[in-house]
Amino acid sequence: MNPAAAPLELHPDRALPAEPGVRAIAREILTETEPLPIVSMHGHVEVSVFVADAPFPDPATLFIRPDHYLTRMLGSQGIGRRELLGDPERPLDARATWRLFCENWRLFRGTPTRYWLEDVLAGVLGVTEQPAATSADRLFDQVSARLAEPGFRPVALLDRFGIEIISTTDAAWDDLAGHQELARRLGGSRVPPTFRPDALLAVAAPDWRQRLARLEAAAEREVGDYDSFLSALEDRREHFIAAGARATDHAAVSADTTPLGRADASRLFARALAGEATAAEQQAFWAHMIFEFARMSCRDGLTMQFHPGSLRDYLPSVHDTWGPDVGYDLPVAMDYTRGLRPLLEAFGHQPGFRFIVFTLDEDTFSRELAPLAGVFPAMRLGAPWWFLDTRDGMRRYREAVTDAAGFYNTTGFVDDTRAFCSIPARHNLARRVDAGFLAGLVAEHRLPLDEAVETAVDLAYHLPKAAYPPIARQG
Amino acid sequence: MNPAAAPLELHPDRALPAEPGVRAIAREILTETEPLPIVSMHGHVEVSVFVADAPFPDPATLFIRPDHYLTRMLGSQGIGRRELLGDPERPLDARATWRLFCENWRLFRGTPTRYWLEDVLAGVLGVTEQPAATSADRLFDQVSARLAEPGFRPVALLDRFGIEIISTTDAAWDDLAGHQELARRLGGSRVPPTFRPDALLAVAAPDWRQRLARLEAAAEREVGDYDSFLSALEDRREHFIAAGARATDHAAVSADTTPLGRADASRLFARALAGEATAAEQQAFWAHMIFEFARMSCRDGLTMQFHPGSLRDYLPSVHDTWGPDVGYDLPVAMDYTRGLRPLLEAFGHQPGFRFIVFTLDEDTFSRELAPLAGVFPAMRLGAPWWFLDTRDGMRRYREAVTDAAGFYNTTGFVDDTRAFCSIPARHNLARRVDAGFLAGLVAEHRLPLDEAVETAVDLAYHLPKAAYPPIARQG
Amino acid sequence: MNPAAAPLELHPDRALPAEPGVRAIAREILTETEPLPIVSMHGHVEVSVFVADAPFPDPATLFIRPDHYLTRMLGSQGIGRRELLGDPERPLDARATWRLFCENWRLFRGTPTRYWLEDVLAGVLGVTEQPAATSADRLFDQVSARLAEPGFRPVALLDRFGIEIISTTDAAWDDLAGHQELARRLGGSRVPPTFRPDALLAVAAPDWRQRLARLEAAAEREVGDYDSFLSALEDRREHFIAAGARATDHAAVSADTTPLGRADASRLFARALAGEATAAEQQAFWAHMIFEFARMSCRDGLTMQFHPGSLRDYLPSVHDTWGPDVGYDLPVAMDYTRGLRPLLEAFGHQPGFRFIVFTLDEDTFSRELAPLAGVFPAMRLGAPWWFLDTRDGMRRYREAVTDAAGFYNTTGFVDDTRAFCSIPARHNLARRVDAGFLAGLVAEHRLPLDEAVETAVDLAYHLPKAAYPPIARQG
Repeated sequence: MNPAAAPLELHPDRALPAEPGVRAIAREILTETEPLPIVSMHGHVEVSVFVADAPFPDPATLFIRPDHYLTRMLGSQGIGRRELLGDPERPLDARATWRLFCENWRLFRGTPTRYWLEDVLAGVLGVTEQPAATSADRLFDQVSARLAEPGFRPVALLDRFGIEIISTTDAAWDDLAGHQELARRLGGSRVPPTFRPDALLAVAAPDWRQRLARLEAAAEREVGDYDSFLSALEDRREHFIAAGARATDHAAVSADTTPLGRADASRLFARALAGEATAAEQQAFWAHMIFEFARMSCRDGLTMQFHPGSLRDYLPSVHDTWGPDVGYDLPVAMDYTRGLRPLLEAFGHQPGFRFIVFTLDEDTFSRELAPLAGVFPAMRLGAPWWFLDTRDGMRRYREAVTDAAGFYNTTGFVDDTRAFCSIPARHNLARRVDAGFLAGLVAEHRLPLDEAVETAVDLAYHLPKAAYPPIARQG
Repeated sequence: MNPAAAPLELHPDRALPAEPGVRAIAREILTETEPLPIVSMHGHVEVSVFVADAPFPDPATLFIRPDHYLTRMLGSQGIGRRELLGDPERPLDARATWRLFCENWRLFRGTPTRYWLEDVLAGVLGVTEQPAATSADRLFDQVSARLAEPGFRPVALLDRFGIEIISTTDAAWDDLAGHQELARRLGGSRVPPTFRPDALLAVAAPDWRQRLARLEAAAEREVGDYDSFLSALEDRREHFIAAGARATDHAAVSADTTPLGRADASRLFARALAGEATAAEQQAFWAHMIFEFARMSCRDGLTMQFHPGSLRDYLPSVHDTWGPDVGYDLPVAMDYTRGLRPLLEAFGHQPGFRFIVFTLDEDTFSRELAPLAGVFPAMRLGAPWWFLDTRDGMRRYREAVTDAAGFYNTTGFVDDTRAFCSIPARHNLARRVDAGFLAGLVAEHRLPLDEAVETAVDLAYHLPKAAYPPIARQG
Repeated sequence: MNPAAAPLELHPDRALPAEPGVRAIAREILTETEPLPIVSMHGHVEVSVFVADAPFPDPATLFIRPDHYLTRMLGSQGIGRRELLGDPERPLDARATWRLFCENWRLFRGTPTRYWLEDVLAGVLGVTEQPAATSADRLFDQVSARLAEPGFRPVALLDRFGIEIISTTDAAWDDLAGHQELARRLGGSRVPPTFRPDALLAVAAPDWRQRLARLEAAAEREVGDYDSFLSALEDRREHFIAAGARATDHAAVSADTTPLGRADASRLFARALAGEATAAEQQAFWAHMIFEFARMSCRDGLTMQFHPGSLRDYLPSVHDTWGPDVGYDLPVAMDYTRGLRPLLEAFGHQPGFRFIVFTLDEDTFSRELAPLAGVFPAMRLGAPWWFLDTRDGMRRYREAVTDAAGFYNTTGFVDDTRAFCSIPARHNLARRVDAGFLAGLVAEHRLPLDEAVETAVDLAYHLPKAAYPPIARQG
């Protein structure tokens, strides 16, 4: 038998500030927030995971294949996707994949992946030794056995994780049958859908007409011009709202929200239908539609989430083989001040409109996003996103945005992951970082402890709930 | 009677580093700088405040109405300017405004507004409980009574605050009668004017001709072409110098300082006179005039202050109702390296020229501004400005700029506020941050304590004085 | 005799974190890394220094004249190069120069220059008092005497400093006779050359034809067109490899790497030969050649170093008098994501290709460079460069890049200096910063101590060695 690897233990003070005085205050704050339920309104777990409620088969399938943080890091050290995951057409050799990962555990030192995985392995799955060449097989068997227990199926994990609500992200044409099924089964809207129409904005994409056909099928109407396109989208939003949706989700390369005139939009859409739209036209149409979606949110009440700034599918060859979301989306610098101006000028003071903005460009936190969120009532700052959703990224975020936006123009913590089991670890880490940040204010006599505790509870629970309220409909 | 709200006390160690060893050193340093007089050479208090020397009527008029930090934060949470301040045409219902503010005190947690207001309320006005719904009326009465005392009139506060000198900011056409009156009354140039000609650079603005007419009236000469425009400006600068001015103040959207040839400038000015200048021409003229003002400063000795990077009056509708400077100026990313090049190439080594640059774009601190200030003798870095004039913003500034610019290419602390009563709190906070930063160097054995103390004194007092020296004129 | 100045002592804990718990851990880590040999593969000391192996004459010649950090800081406070260094045509008045520097020692408070110089003066040269007006002459004599000792000649210092290998940077046309001589004398390739072809890319420069003539002479072939230009460069690279070279070094203003088609490149080169190339063409050619150099590295194995983002020779007048590299190179904002895309798309997964990227724009660390290095196997992040090669710059770097790139996609510490004697101080400082950063992870229970130590050793020694491996050639 292989010798034991180094022990894996979760220290109760992990990720809290090192200075003993500040740490003691942070611990007091964390005591109040650690047990709070999880509100997870920006998730990317597939609804089918909960509908099927099948056991996760093994740690490689659960942790490695769907997690681009993890595959990109291994790839960056020369372990290609094919070496790690095998042929995309064939079933995964899960044990071999897991072993390769464990042998390269050192690459994750200091990264959020390591932090989250330690939390899940030790805290959720009862693992007591570090991944390593010597422990790989033992961990594989131990975790696989644990995952086979009924208490570790997806729906059971919702309770184990204390997840009060978890949204999915769904194409505009999705029938949402899974959500309706879950609403029946779980009694209530615990797994609401989120309306994500990005695919329909790529009017220059070769398969855009096929996507549009799916919209037509779902909306049960022909989309022969720009007006019927808008109507179909509005119909779908109503369908989402009926299925419990509270929010929409929008990506873009730039933050531009310049609207087109109706005539220009119609003309551009007609060119798209004719297969003649250019890349520049797609960009203009995208910006225009972000503006239009804000207008729709003002009418139907869906919280609008906007996270621009990622150049998607940087390597076409990788995309062709492996599809989207495998780690080759790369951030670019942003201009939110000018980009959001048309949208905010039109809707920034609209009562009831909720506009949540995320970024991958930290520079914009103090320069643009906090000043904007600190003046426009419709706008809230989303949590640090993606590459910034880390111990230090979250601390820098709080420090950069609190001066101009305070705490109450942020959404509190919002995760953004397809790695289901990492959700409690991510929320817990955010609560630790906020506890640490607030403890620093207390230690520096900038905030009394009772106010710090109240703020921490708001950030962990009340603010995310308030940012994504349910939509009341008559009838 | 309403129950007491939570106590309000100023801890002597507030805003100092939390680590006990570093804090002890910081306290030693602060002991030397806290009592030093205040040099406030970039202020925006109106001279009429000192000339009239009338008591401030109540805390809402004093603290809320003129402070865009405060009104923007309340606005961002849905408390509009009208709800807060009433109709712009009618007198303020001061008590109601104050109450609304107190009820929303929690929004300011962690923000500089809270820090400054606590300092003023407790340190200057003797308030002992936090603003809250329950304390609002009591605080209103208590503060109003205190403000009615003779010792709390504006001129008396100059002494109470230890303000050695405080400049105002004045339009190029201002007659400066107030300053002359104060010079007579206070014996010396304690309240010098600052020359701010921005309004005259907006050659595409609809009311530019009216502004020009005011210049013509003040300069007592017709401005029929570009040459007479320059001469009128030079005359006004002499008038300002005679009234004690030490500096000029210039805003811009971009950092561009590209000069036009004389013929191009003349042609552009003629088009402006004819009402034909475009937005692009205005931008080119603005950049050109920043260059020209540097040339004038080389000749007449006025310290030149430049703080570009704010997109002013983001929402035209807000501007139309409430005027400028109400919180809707938003920062944009800057390119100082290329923008300042023409100016620095021409005047960066000019003996006696003082060019102070501010920014709202923190990214430029280590990338551009510190390297520039660290090589051009004419250039100094202004203090962290506006959204960055905070506990953490100032710490990040020192950390970002000291490597390449050292301490002696910065101006030390320069406030920038129309909130008169916050001036001592702002200077005190800056001294705390610098004490903390220097204490960190001492604790890490990077600087001996005696040198840290000397540096702190320089930053608090000697460097600001040296950056804005009086101008000697014969005659 | 002048009274003693303040004492100069190196504290063993200098630059370690102030918090006692973290510091104790950092000290444990540092104990393991401090004695490791130095790998200095990105240096700018002239090979002639080692070939001649003459004693350094005095501290002004050694420390002041070649160090643009130092001359630019003095210049920024009005001590011009002429005042400091005399006439460029005449010999240095070394004692006067040294005195002027000592009198202005306070300007360097908090800067890396002070840190490095203290380390060299006290740690290498045995100086025990601070530079000051009163100590200047004494220090001058003491240091000069020390430098005259045989053990302080350049080659002896290599051993004293523990430098295992130090590369130089050499023009593409260099004959490398010095390196061959040193290889014979020192037995091995301890001082390898580095291939730097930048000068040949400036096809719009007035003296480009002369530079090309030097390439022709070195390559012993005529360069009459683009194809022969490429061949000559390839020949020179082989010559460098034969002389022990392991790497190339490339600057650029932007990060653009867009290749031209062969026909376009040939046409552009022909225009350059005819003296007709424009600035825009130079820029396009430069980007193209960066792409081509990556292709060459894929073939011949030379590690490719790229450090764009500096606007060189900002002041033409300074350049004309004093030449390049005197402190007037200024950073600009970068777009690595889009700029590097063509190169990374073509070669980012090429086995064996090593592409090291540096930056002066910190914003790109978390936004672009760490995400890129964290996914492309060919790419590694260089150490914080130039203005960022400081105590706090290095800490910010680790914090900004570790989340997405981990430790193992960085090169570990790479210095970049023409100040030979500062090399051990720089490496020692980097080891202190990394020890402090890793100690923070340990104190926050994010990494066990044994892994932190292993990582620190990798960063100090193994990663730089792995980033610049020797090239095996048959024959």
